Amino acid sequence: VKTLVSLGLKHEKDRLLVLDQTRLPSEELWLEAKTPADMVGMIRSLQVRGAPLIGVAAALSLGKLAERGAGRKELGSAAKALREARPTAVNLMAAVDRMAAASDPVLEAEAIFEEDVELSRLMAENGAAFIVDGDAVLTHCNTGGLATAGVGTALGAIRTAHGQGKRLHVYVDETRPLLQGARLTTWECAKHGIPFTLICDGMDGTLMRQGRIDRVFVGADRIAANGDFANKIGTYSAAVLASHHEIPFYCVAPRTTVDLSLPDGSFIPIEERGPEEVRRGWSPADAPVFNPAFDVTPADLLERLVLDSGAFTKKELKGGALKKRLVEADR
Amino acid sequence: VKTLVSLGLKHEKDRLLVLDQTRLPSEELWLEAKTPADMVGMIRSLQVRGAPLIGVAAALSLGKLAERGAGRKELGSAAKALREARPTAVNLMAAVDRMAAASDPVLEAEAIFEEDVELSRLMAENGAAFIVDGDAVLTHCNTGGLATAGVGTALGAIRTAHGQGKRLHVYVDETRPLLQGARLTTWECAKHGIPFTLICDGMDGTLMRQGRIDRVFVGADRIAANGDFANKIGTYSAAVLASHHEIPFYCVAPRTTVDLSLPDGSFIPIEERGPEEVRRGWSPADAPVFNPAFDVTPADLLERLVLDSGAFTKKELKGGALKKRLVEADR
Repeated sequence: VKTLVSLGLKHEKDRLLVLDQTRLPSEELWLEAKTPADMVGMIRSLQVRGAPLIGVAAALSLGKLAERGAGRKELGSAAKALREARPTAVNLMAAVDRMAAASDPVLEAEAIFEEDVELSRLMAENGAAFIVDGDAVLTHCNTGGLATAGVGTALGAIRTAHGQGKRLHVYVDETRPLLQGARLTTWECAKHGIPFTLICDGMDGTLMRQGRIDRVFVGADRIAANGDFANKIGTYSAAVLASHHEIPFYCVAPRTTVDLSLPDGSFIPIEERGPEEVRRGWSPADAPVFNPAFDVTPADLLERLVLDSGAFTKKELKGGALKKRLVEADR
Repeated sequence: VKTLVSLGLKHEKDRLLVLDQTRLPSEELWLEAKTPADMVGMIRSLQVRGAPLIGVAAALSLGKLAERGAGRKELGSAAKALREARPTAVNLMAAVDRMAAASDPVLEAEAIFEEDVELSRLMAENGAAFIVDGDAVLTHCNTGGLATAGVGTALGAIRTAHGQGKRLHVYVDETRPLLQGARLTTWECAKHGIPFTLICDGMDGTLMRQGRIDRVFVGADRIAANGDFANKIGTYSAAVLASHHEIPFYCVAPRTTVDLSLPDGSFIPIEERGPEEVRRGWSPADAPVFNPAFDVTPADLLERLVLDSGAFTKKELKGGALKKRLVEADR
């Protein structure tokens, strides 16, 4: 058994630990996921989150179960529960399916972790190439080391550009309702010494109008075959605003986020979550709420879709480049 | 001395009371404004808020001071402090200037209150005419009976349409950072039996894309001569999104919100507030923050600017209709 450590996961000989992301930044509390059922709860409650990371975490919890000698049947029912823990991020389903087909689940889980680190590295480098010295970059939600096993997706690209010595400033959308930007992206930026400013989601437009945003970088939870993608609620609004202000908009994700079985974004299932995340105690207790966790951004609004294997323009996406590339990669 | 009562103000023989809007909806606490200095504090802290209402409240506090026999000099310095309490809403400055010029400040303050009620009634009727039976209307911030002495501006129009028997549904932006939508607009809608759904600001785009918003109604804190207007931060983003989705966007305000001395919106001073309103305890305590309280929406994005004296298209605004109308009204 390999020791594998990322910003939000620790895989050790005897245990699997998850950094409770709902407690950040005020407290760094590590929770043990003793069983896949624990992990289902942690994924549902967003103690572990980020499309790539929940795939890796689910795989490791199945690996641990196999390590303890569980049979095919037990592994299968655990896999089913994990698969259904969150409906939008396809990385989770992809990782669980891979585990179900693996001859050695322990090795497979470790491989999924290590591959995710490598996918992060590659896409972050591909994304960083689009960031210019002096840029102010707007980002939404958290897409860094807390969202993957590696350096991250969109925030990984920003961190990589920063590491290359490019001077940049990050505007961080707080990302209501669950405040992943306010709580997690600020924490990561501070940790890595990347200059940032926290804003409310409704401030994007005014910053863009003032010419203070050069580029927008976001991640994805599922990408359809035509390049349309689901990401944290608020992403679509930011994309429309960027388009209106002619600011280039980039989505950075690993190949594991692509779902070629869906022709376009309208087929992506969107998770709706409970009203308390929006009400939070300051609204009337019985206020009716609409709380979709994700929205879909059409590929038309993209300057580039950046994958680990390279970047695509909207024209290339329209021409089916995504399918072609991934099918080639599978050969 | 007249007894004057609105949803957020009570002017009685011996005292002036303000409903503390920072405590709503969990608590209905009335605070006494014994002096204009008290009122300055209440306006700064948003215990009393809404562009028209802070003008009325400031006038009444000066009226009370005059009632207690204050001289010109004392009134003048109180007026100066009130005038500077918030920099964006021009109603405050207009009401204070009117008080300074009045021969009888007590009567003048009462007149300002009663005129604001009448302006609300008129603009709400003018706005309601654009709302169609069956409409879903998106609104931002709070623009109802808590924002004026009367029925309100944008929410006043919605309430008037509802009172006319039009079936409608209100989508309420929570309006970060200070949550006037989540706390106040929901409370008013529930009070008046208007069906509503609370959403986060970043959900506007996805609702529009799904075809679930027929119209957007907002208020204003200052309107320039060309129809550009400042309103609660997030308004501009909603206006761009509405334009992208071809959804008509309406701004409803009284004539007291118009500042003909400013040729366009770029001249409107925008208040920046402290970082804690954004950080709120869940972000890193030292996270750098940008917190503009307002943004400016260009008149180009408007379907109609609705005043008490009628409604204007963007073409009419471009032709200088606003100045013409208000100068006529002054004759």
